[in-house]
Amino acid sequence: MMSFARGAAIRSRTLIWLLAACLAFPHISQSADRPGLLLTEDGVRTIRSQLGSVPLFDASLAAVKREVDQEIAKGIETPIPKDFSGGYTHQRHKQNFFVAQKAGVLYQILEDPKYAIYVRDMLFQYEAMYGSLPLHPQERSYARGRLFWQCLNDSNWLVYMSQAYDTIYDFLSEQERQKLEDNLFRPFADFLSLDNPQFFNRVHNHSTWGNAAVGMIGLVMDDQELIERALYGVKDADVDVSARDNDGGFIRVDGQKAGFLANVDAPFSPDGYYTEGPYYQRYAMYPFLVFAQALHNLKPELAILEHKDGVLLKAVDALLTLADADGEFFPLNDGQKGMSYNARELVTAVDIAYHFGGGNRQLLSIASQQGQVLLDDTGIAVAIAVRDNQAAPFRKTSVNLSDGPNGRQGGVAVLRQGNEDLALVFKYSAQGLSHGHYDKLSYSLYERGTEVLQDYGLVRFVNIGQKGGGNYLPENATWAKQTVAHNTIVQNETSHFGGEYEIGSRHHSVLHFFDASDPRVQIASANDANAYPGTKLQRTVALIQDESLDRPYLLDVFRVTSSVSNRYDLPFYFMGQVISTNFSFSTPPALQALGSGHGYEHLYLEAQGEPASDSSQVTWLNQGRFYTLTTATLPGDTLLFTRIGANDPDFNLRRDPGLMVRRDQAEATVFASIVENHGSYSPVSELALNATGSIEGLAVTLDSDEYTALTIRQATGLSSMLIIANADASADANHRLEVGGQFFQWSGPYKFLPRAESPR
Amino acid sequence: MMSFARGAAIRSRTLIWLLAACLAFPHISQSADRPGLLLTEDGVRTIRSQLGSVPLFDASLAAVKREVDQEIAKGIETPIPKDFSGGYTHQRHKQNFFVAQKAGVLYQILEDPKYAIYVRDMLFQYEAMYGSLPLHPQERSYARGRLFWQCLNDSNWLVYMSQAYDTIYDFLSEQERQKLEDNLFRPFADFLSLDNPQFFNRVHNHSTWGNAAVGMIGLVMDDQELIERALYGVKDADVDVSARDNDGGFIRVDGQKAGFLANVDAPFSPDGYYTEGPYYQRYAMYPFLVFAQALHNLKPELAILEHKDGVLLKAVDALLTLADADGEFFPLNDGQKGMSYNARELVTAVDIAYHFGGGNRQLLSIASQQGQVLLDDTGIAVAIAVRDNQAAPFRKTSVNLSDGPNGRQGGVAVLRQGNEDLALVFKYSAQGLSHGHYDKLSYSLYERGTEVLQDYGLVRFVNIGQKGGGNYLPENATWAKQTVAHNTIVQNETSHFGGEYEIGSRHHSVLHFFDASDPRVQIASANDANAYPGTKLQRTVALIQDESLDRPYLLDVFRVTSSVSNRYDLPFYFMGQVISTNFSFSTPPALQALGSGHGYEHLYLEAQGEPASDSSQVTWLNQGRFYTLTTATLPGDTLLFTRIGANDPDFNLRRDPGLMVRRDQAEATVFASIVENHGSYSPVSELALNATGSIEGLAVTLDSDEYTALTIRQATGLSSMLIIANADASADANHRLEVGGQFFQWSGPYKFLPRAESPR
Repeated sequence: MMSFARGAAIRSRTLIWLLAACLAFPHISQSADRPGLLLTEDGVRTIRSQLGSVPLFDASLAAVKREVDQEIAKGIETPIPKDFSGGYTHQRHKQNFFVAQKAGVLYQILEDPKYAIYVRDMLFQYEAMYGSLPLHPQERSYARGRLFWQCLNDSNWLVYMSQAYDTIYDFLSEQERQKLEDNLFRPFADFLSLDNPQFFNRVHNHSTWGNAAVGMIGLVMDDQELIERALYGVKDADVDVSARDNDGGFIRVDGQKAGFLANVDAPFSPDGYYTEGPYYQRYAMYPFLVFAQALHNLKPELAILEHKDGVLLKAVDALLTLADADGEFFPLNDGQKGMSYNARELVTAVDIAYHFGGGNRQLLSIASQQGQVLLDDTGIAVAIAVRDNQAAPFRKTSVNLSDGPNGRQGGVAVLRQGNEDLALVFKYSAQGLSHGHYDKLSYSLYERGTEVLQDYGLVRFVNIGQKGGGNYLPENATWAKQTVAHNTIVQNETSHFGGEYEIGSRHHSVLHFFDASDPRVQIASANDANAYPGTKLQRTVALIQDESLDRPYLLDVFRVTSSVSNRYDLPFYFMGQVISTNFSFSTPPALQALGSGHGYEHLYLEAQGEPASDSSQVTWLNQGRFYTLTTATLPGDTLLFTRIGANDPDFNLRRDPGLMVRRDQAEATVFASIVENHGSYSPVSELALNATGSIEGLAVTLDSDEYTALTIRQATGLSSMLIIANADASADANHRLEVGGQFFQWSGPYKFLPRAESPR
Repeated sequence: MMSFARGAAIRSRTLIWLLAACLAFPHISQSADRPGLLLTEDGVRTIRSQLGSVPLFDASLAAVKREVDQEIAKGIETPIPKDFSGGYTHQRHKQNFFVAQKAGVLYQILEDPKYAIYVRDMLFQYEAMYGSLPLHPQERSYARGRLFWQCLNDSNWLVYMSQAYDTIYDFLSEQERQKLEDNLFRPFADFLSLDNPQFFNRVHNHSTWGNAAVGMIGLVMDDQELIERALYGVKDADVDVSARDNDGGFIRVDGQKAGFLANVDAPFSPDGYYTEGPYYQRYAMYPFLVFAQALHNLKPELAILEHKDGVLLKAVDALLTLADADGEFFPLNDGQKGMSYNARELVTAVDIAYHFGGGNRQLLSIASQQGQVLLDDTGIAVAIAVRDNQAAPFRKTSVNLSDGPNGRQGGVAVLRQGNEDLALVFKYSAQGLSHGHYDKLSYSLYERGTEVLQDYGLVRFVNIGQKGGGNYLPENATWAKQTVAHNTIVQNETSHFGGEYEIGSRHHSVLHFFDASDPRVQIASANDANAYPGTKLQRTVALIQDESLDRPYLLDVFRVTSSVSNRYDLPFYFMGQVISTNFSFSTPPALQALGSGHGYEHLYLEAQGEPASDSSQVTWLNQGRFYTLTTATLPGDTLLFTRIGANDPDFNLRRDPGLMVRRDQAEATVFASIVENHGSYSPVSELALNATGSIEGLAVTLDSDEYTALTIRQATGLSSMLIIANADASADANHRLEVGGQFFQWSGPYKFLPRAESPR
């Protein structure tokens, strides 16, 4: 069989061309260039020839066939739109586009016309209703859809239906196609774009979906106007630039930079980090990648996969590294916990990244774990490689990812020790658009996929109708986004930037240094001077594997300098049950909220104590593991045990514990803490191994604008020291410092001394 | 090689006999009848001949060898006793007896004298210290030990060391044996028995350990006096019969029934249920079974395994059925959650039950899952059978187990639906000795190993030194044992029997009926007339698989009749987060304790509401599953959302939720409730399937002293009805009843009508 130069061919398609193709291949009714969007004719040929010999693909095909056959048996339903997410009409229309896309693929692979008929009939049911459909009756959205309550979901529909249409294109008569395009697809695309520029022309994941929807149907219809509009936005749109979306995000449409290319440029840093965070990156990746794949197939001259130094494929790598040992994404900003590599969007991402990204064999391990592949060119390539034992273990390492379109708006660092025995996610990024949280210099800590110090995530039960229609709940704004909901400093019980989105969006933290080159000391440090005007924050986090200890630990040095006296609160959201403390505490007769705003109204004060020594310790037990937090405390500090759940009238919040270190009337101060996993407990053997920690205490031995030195005392009597260069963190700077009568000399931003004499 | 008649042989052993044996087998220094206690000479022969060809045994041997070799490399330590459980000296002495027993077995199997030398040297270190050892310095126990803080642990030591001694008996010279027996074993046995009859002569798991310890060393030493003492107790002991042990249990030693046989007779019902519950049965089974195995080997004329109709082997079956789908034991009474089939005591139980109990092939599945076998006759038999693919799947079914020595003190029923899709544990037993809780007619509910409605378990962190030395914590008495900590009725905020152990110990609940013969309706019902004098409690629980519903549900009908007006509280300790209710509720500004005693002081009142209809509903989400409780409520009822954790100054309690139905000023009333698992949620697909329940409501349609009829309304509009015979529950009783204008006729204790018209 011949192959065609597709990008050019599709644009020159004419009736004569079609006729020629039909004559050349009289045994099939399809023209030579359909399908072409994702599944290509070459791909279909390969798939048909391999069927039955590629287990991963065969299993995926069988699962899809089972699902589609069940749906076909049930019949097609296109109810009048009525419900929010989670409700019946929402779910039904959503299910329809998923199934139609799959049925179209089955038609191509299995050549059974019943699948094409199913898609055709469904499309005509939509065609019959669409013209007279008013706006969706639910009025909450800044951009209401017609099938769904928001244009976002209407765009989802069109992204999938474009694929369905492409796969049955040749099955339809010219007349049928005309009818669908005139009455359904073109008005649908116009509605999402021309009628809703406040949705379509943003730099935002909503718009990415809209752009991909309009662009993909444009590619199938070979409609240059739609394709241009998708790539560059609606021209001369009239949009209220001061408007906000439902999440409080700016609409911020300036008419210049809009469309798919702008959306590729803006939210991704050159390292592939997506500024909203991995949960939304996962969601957004699908339209980015499928539209890119379609453009690659049909507009190769755009070289979309090479755009911005190949950022779309880099983004897949970045996304995969922003996950714990179980493949669950770190819930930076708004992120629902539990979302993982196994999401369908990641099947797309992994298959496309493998096929178009040079065949990274580590990706095949993830594909194997996903247990499914796309039923297209990329999926068959992955399945064949897996079958041929090409998979290599997927290994995540420490990584530092910049944020911002040019990589100059802070970033996110992930430190990993051993085989993810400890993984620390350190956030010093920009605001993250409307899904951002006010948590400069926060972190969360994991041990092999289990949360040690948690990031709360979001307050939303996605698609669970009983909980506010599955949408964001009020406590997302009043709790989850607030600073005190995170493991970072709160000054005077006020969130960073006062919790003001406009202000937070203007600023970002700044990397001080990152060095993961020595597996014994992996370290990252960042500054923030804007969260609280007049206050400088510098946090240094390190995973240290001291040779004299069995296990690595986290060292956390938070330096605060202010010209005035403030209250500083540093919470640690440890997961588990308190086993012991080295200080006494009292519990109140009734639980009151800790404060009255900025998230404090959602914390109960469960207990309160004062330090009994220079190092306050709390040991807790979680899922059979003992952990200890050791934090350097001062006389006058207060240790507050908190519990989330106050002022939560609908049980939207989890009742999780926290320990807050409170320091009053401080100007410049350092919070230095260590978190270690030191032991284990089995309820079966009932053996408690190493139930007490290996760290006896730690002290800030020296602190100046130039240097901070920490002394870490082990229970064995050994001491070690970490010195951080606060002023000049360049790799080649030479330092000379006296600490407690000893002189140290080194170059680079930090010095770790595994066996330091404890200075007196 | 010859085989010997062991029981007789050992008693007629003489120097001449030994000499003859040595002459007969000049290549080994052992006499023919050692070892003989658990590992026998025949067993050793079989093991040696099979080594390398029985994977399960080989793996167990390799693991034991690795562990013992490591310990030998560390050297022997026998520190001066000082610590409670969890402390160093406790752990070290405990580790010593475990390792010595294993080293002795390795000596027999591998014939490497280093293992015998290790055991010998350890025993002589103990021999050297024992004579001058005072009582253990910790004074908490009613029966202080010398190596450990309580005689119980000293008994553990001797049970294991007897085995170790048996395995190296022939390795030692006559003189060495004499020294060990005179200075260590005999005084040790006398201390546990003659010096501590308040420990030794009880009917209690403590005494079982003591009896086994004295009896096993007696068997090895061939000391008839010790053996008799073990079997029948210390004669003419002078014990304060009004004394209590550390758990508040009665000492209750009457001088008549004591010793091992009394301990076999008393705590086990004829069905093999152990009155303290499965957690303690698991603990107690080890001495029961190993001493029984030793008696079977060396005192066959006692026919110990046939004693009381084979109750010891029946007890293994009973224990195995008192576990959830994951093999974790139901935490009836004091029970630490997570203890499971995989406990070392269960390896013993399963291997012995298989070898001596007729070779039940289902037990081999558990042995495979345990991944280890005993290194003795029973273990090699199991390993060979597993290797030869004899294992059959282990299937648990519904079962009703009587409690009490004669099976006449109530019992425990377990209802199981499908493949443990639902499992309900219904407790209508006796008090359960000192580890009993005040929870007549309580239940807990599981779905495939996940708790749906929990039993709290105990308040203790076994062997975690920081938590009260690993012992019971104060909240075990003030919370875990109290009635309100369980899913059962509390009258006037007072625990059953007023929480008085003396009173509770005199009573038990009574089975009304049990019928699991119809998989569509599995049902159990029991009465209690003593928990509250003047009040009769009757609870009927059923797992119903209605053909018109996808999933089974629990129906719970709690009938209370009293001559006076009372407050009734019925808590449901659901696990998970509230998703929705069909009634409104308010949350207080501060959390107060719900009451001031009987466990109420440990509950926070989180929210409070009133019924909005005849059926109040709460839906919650746990681990990706939606559950709904539907409970028939009356105007004036109050619905209280509670949270455990008030008055908990040391964070000893878990912060778990509950819903309490409160009915005030009621005399006779019925609480009827349904719990269903109806849907699922995946954070990966973000699909919520069947997030709302299939039950719309339920009503008590009729209630009299003769009958109670419940109407269950499905969301589809269908109704079903269950009629319970309250008076005559015999299987052949004929009933005729009018309910809502319809006449029903049936025989037996209940009638279920899957399609009943809803009576008006």
